[in-house]
Amino acid sequence: MLKSSEKRIGRNAMLLAIAEEDEEKDLIKQFEQQGWLYCKGKVGSMEMQKIVAAIETAAKRQGLVQEDVYRQMHALYHAIIEALHGVTRGQVELGDMLRTVGLRFAVIKGRPYDKEEEGEWIAVALYGTIGAPIRGLEHETIGLGINHI
Amino acid sequence: MLKSSEKRIGRNAMLLAIAEEDEEKDLIKQFEQQGWLYCKGKVGSMEMQKIVAAIETAAKRQGLVQEDVYRQMHALYHAIIEALHGVTRGQVELGDMLRTVGLRFAVIKGRPYDKEEEGEWIAVALYGTIGAPIRGLEHETIGLGINHI
Amino acid sequence: MLKSSEKRIGRNAMLLAIAEEDEEKDLIKQFEQQGWLYCKGKVGSMEMQKIVAAIETAAKRQGLVQEDVYRQMHALYHAIIEALHGVTRGQVELGDMLRTVGLRFAVIKGRPYDKEEEGEWIAVALYGTIGAPIRGLEHETIGLGINHI
Amino acid sequence: MLKSSEKRIGRNAMLLAIAEEDEEKDLIKQFEQQGWLYCKGKVGSMEMQKIVAAIETAAKRQGLVQEDVYRQMHALYHAIIEALHGVTRGQVELGDMLRTVGLRFAVIKGRPYDKEEEGEWIAVALYGTIGAPIRGLEHETIGLGINHI
Amino acid sequence: MLKSSEKRIGRNAMLLAIAEEDEEKDLIKQFEQQGWLYCKGKVGSMEMQKIVAAIETAAKRQGLVQEDVYRQMHALYHAIIEALHGVTRGQVELGDMLRTVGLRFAVIKGRPYDKEEEGEWIAVALYGTIGAPIRGLEHETIGLGINHI
Amino acid sequence: MLKSSEKRIGRNAMLLAIAEEDEEKDLIKQFEQQGWLYCKGKVGSMEMQKIVAAIETAAKRQGLVQEDVYRQMHALYHAIIEALHGVTRGQVELGDMLRTVGLRFAVIKGRPYDKEEEGEWIAVALYGTIGAPIRGLEHETIGLGINHI
Repeated sequence: MLKSSEKRIGRNAMLLAIAEEDEEKDLIKQFEQQGWLYCKGKVGSMEMQKIVAAIETAAKRQGLVQEDVYRQMHALYHAIIEALHGVTRGQVELGDMLRTVGLRFAVIKGRPYDKEEEGEWIAVALYGTIGAPIRGLEHETIGLGINHI
Repeated sequence: MLKSSEKRIGRNAMLLAIAEEDEEKDLIKQFEQQGWLYCKGKVGSMEMQKIVAAIETAAKRQGLVQEDVYRQMHALYHAIIEALHGVTRGQVELGDMLRTVGLRFAVIKGRPYDKEEEGEWIAVALYGTIGAPIRGLEHETIGLGINHI
Repeated sequence: MLKSSEKRIGRNAMLLAIAEEDEEKDLIKQFEQQGWLYCKGKVGSMEMQKIVAAIETAAKRQGLVQEDVYRQMHALYHAIIEALHGVTRGQVELGDMLRTVGLRFAVIKGRPYDKEEEGEWIAVALYGTIGAPIRGLEHETIGLGINHI
Repeated sequence: MLKSSEKRIGRNAMLLAIAEEDEEKDLIKQFEQQGWLYCKGKVGSMEMQKIVAAIETAAKRQGLVQEDVYRQMHALYHAIIEALHGVTRGQVELGDMLRTVGLRFAVIKGRPYDKEEEGEWIAVALYGTIGAPIRGLEHETIGLGINHI
Repeated sequence: MLKSSEKRIGRNAMLLAIAEEDEEKDLIKQFEQQGWLYCKGKVGSMEMQKIVAAIETAAKRQGLVQEDVYRQMHALYHAIIEALHGVTRGQVELGDMLRTVGLRFAVIKGRPYDKEEEGEWIAVALYGTIGAPIRGLEHETIGLGINHI
Repeated sequence: MLKSSEKRIGRNAMLLAIAEEDEEKDLIKQFEQQGWLYCKGKVGSMEMQKIVAAIETAAKRQGLVQEDVYRQMHALYHAIIEALHGVTRGQVELGDMLRTVGLRFAVIKGRPYDKEEEGEWIAVALYGTIGAPIRGLEHETIGLGINHI
């Protein structure tokens, strides 16, 4: 039983990640009305730590997390790693397995539950391609991680 | 570099999985114009084999795969398991880890690449909730698996 | 660089898990002075979900988490699963791999960081034996999971 | 750099596992001349613990390991689980992932290294099919585990 | 129930991988009569991506796969990774875990099933040693991956 | 049912790993009376192979294992990797996942079982912190691996 769609933090993050530039505006307007904090970016690499770092940097810059509050960074980190499980589907590795990714990421923070005590949660959505380090030898890939923050 | 959106088999599968009933119509019309075969269904369980079986059964009934052609079933099976990696994020287990899922699934088959030789591919997208076997103790989860068929 | 030992939530949880009955008293006195909430229990099973359930039940009864606040149950659940990674060392499975565990568990909640914003964290420590379902064919095993709550 | 083929415990175990009945005789004669202890058997199941149990039972009956010496059972157990990694290629699970195996197994014990101190080692080789629980929807699978004993 | 031995693509690949130079000739003659495409090579490294690349290069050179047809490279890649699961037995990693491999690999392509619709499949077999980066501190290792192509 | 505490090789290793300098003396006196061989050290790195190497080097220097006896190095290696499972809780990776560890390690060798035939066993205990490569963004982590030697 899913909640009314505006409360769905994971769905919202995924919609933002897969949105084309012209589709983003409407989404963003909705997010702002509904009180979600969000950021979106792009990163491509064979080195997984660069993917993690790019998402963390974007989320810090946009004020979704505070760099010096470990509690927040810990919540974000685990959401990123969980999203990478969906992207890598087995071993959470890229270059060592001779594969690379080109990803769009979206991070959203807010209150997906009605109850006050549930507080804030964070969702990291990834969408892009994974494949050999040769253009065209790749297919799409998706991942979503959600954590309380 | 992602291709024009209509060719994106993974994105299409994910859009179908997360579509509300009233959003499905437009998507399905598009899929039919673009020549995608598709099916959509729901399944909830603590037993992972039931999730796999439900998706396989739906894909067989809708003619996306032929039950007695192992090649096709093999392609679909691996796409399902890859999608379950995104849903389970670590160990591909449900009940043994005291968690349950309620999922909507979409399966799409077609030609995502321009080159004739690339032939047909299949995508399995999963969207729903995962959590404790108690209503409300759950958050959203997403997975996508893609394979040549 | 580890902090002064009284702030170490993980070390405290592990000390409680491995403490003999006569060693528990001193530890518990310390915990109470330092403001840690804690619980301790025993569970043995080939079914991993029973291990998870036993720890969750003890933590709820002792007031470390509130059953109806998903945020808290989510934090605890992930700490338990992380601790089980240490116990199972590879696949987070018991009976399917023809092995069983006899575990003592300790759960501790409190403020391990000096900064106010870091808030409360929870640690789950497991100590016992793992082995074949035949008495004596077993060795010790340990696991620790920590999460913000 | 591999050693002379007669010393190769893993290769020998694999050759025995994949040998047809009429090829077994020659192999077994060689093993006896070279001082290897061995056993061979068959097992099919969706329940992984049955696979583990069948191999353990055969190895005990043929005197490769002593049931009441944990050291030996521990060595054998880990060799079996390592072999199952090759068979399952990802998650060490069968029925939960809606798949079944039909396996021939060979276990060999002996001295694969020239140095006296290296003592005895044990190898578990698995060969058979893995697939859906429907005849014919399956392909071959192989695994090898080696441990000091 | 295994099929007649000449149809067994996995067994054939494994036999080629473990064959000594003087045993290869007979096998190869058989493969040519039975219509299998094949290649064999050697590779040793602590960097797993070099293992993957060496096998892909050999398979491309011998015409088992076409470099610019992603469908084929995708099938081969997954077969290689599945074979590496058997070799690494847990984490698909080498140097990061301070271990190295010396492998012989065999790749075979052909029609292992009687039914016309089953089409072509590819098998990757690996055989060699795994161990510390010090000569002699190593034991044998085996892996097999099979995929439709 | 755990044995009398002095025989518990895993517990002893963990107590040594978490002991403060002033607590070590008593432990070490006990170990010497009870006939345990042991060593203790510190290592911090984002590169996991350095963690493995540091523990192996310490164990060789203290005479717990002989460098040129593979059987012993094999037993130690697997105990280290199992302990790292507890530390990493999922993927046995550090730098690739943008995290680093600062660990104290203890290795103990001796006879934990009453029966003569059970021979010697080795335990590797790890205790320290894991987190982002930024001071303070880290929490505690623990791992234990046990093997026959």
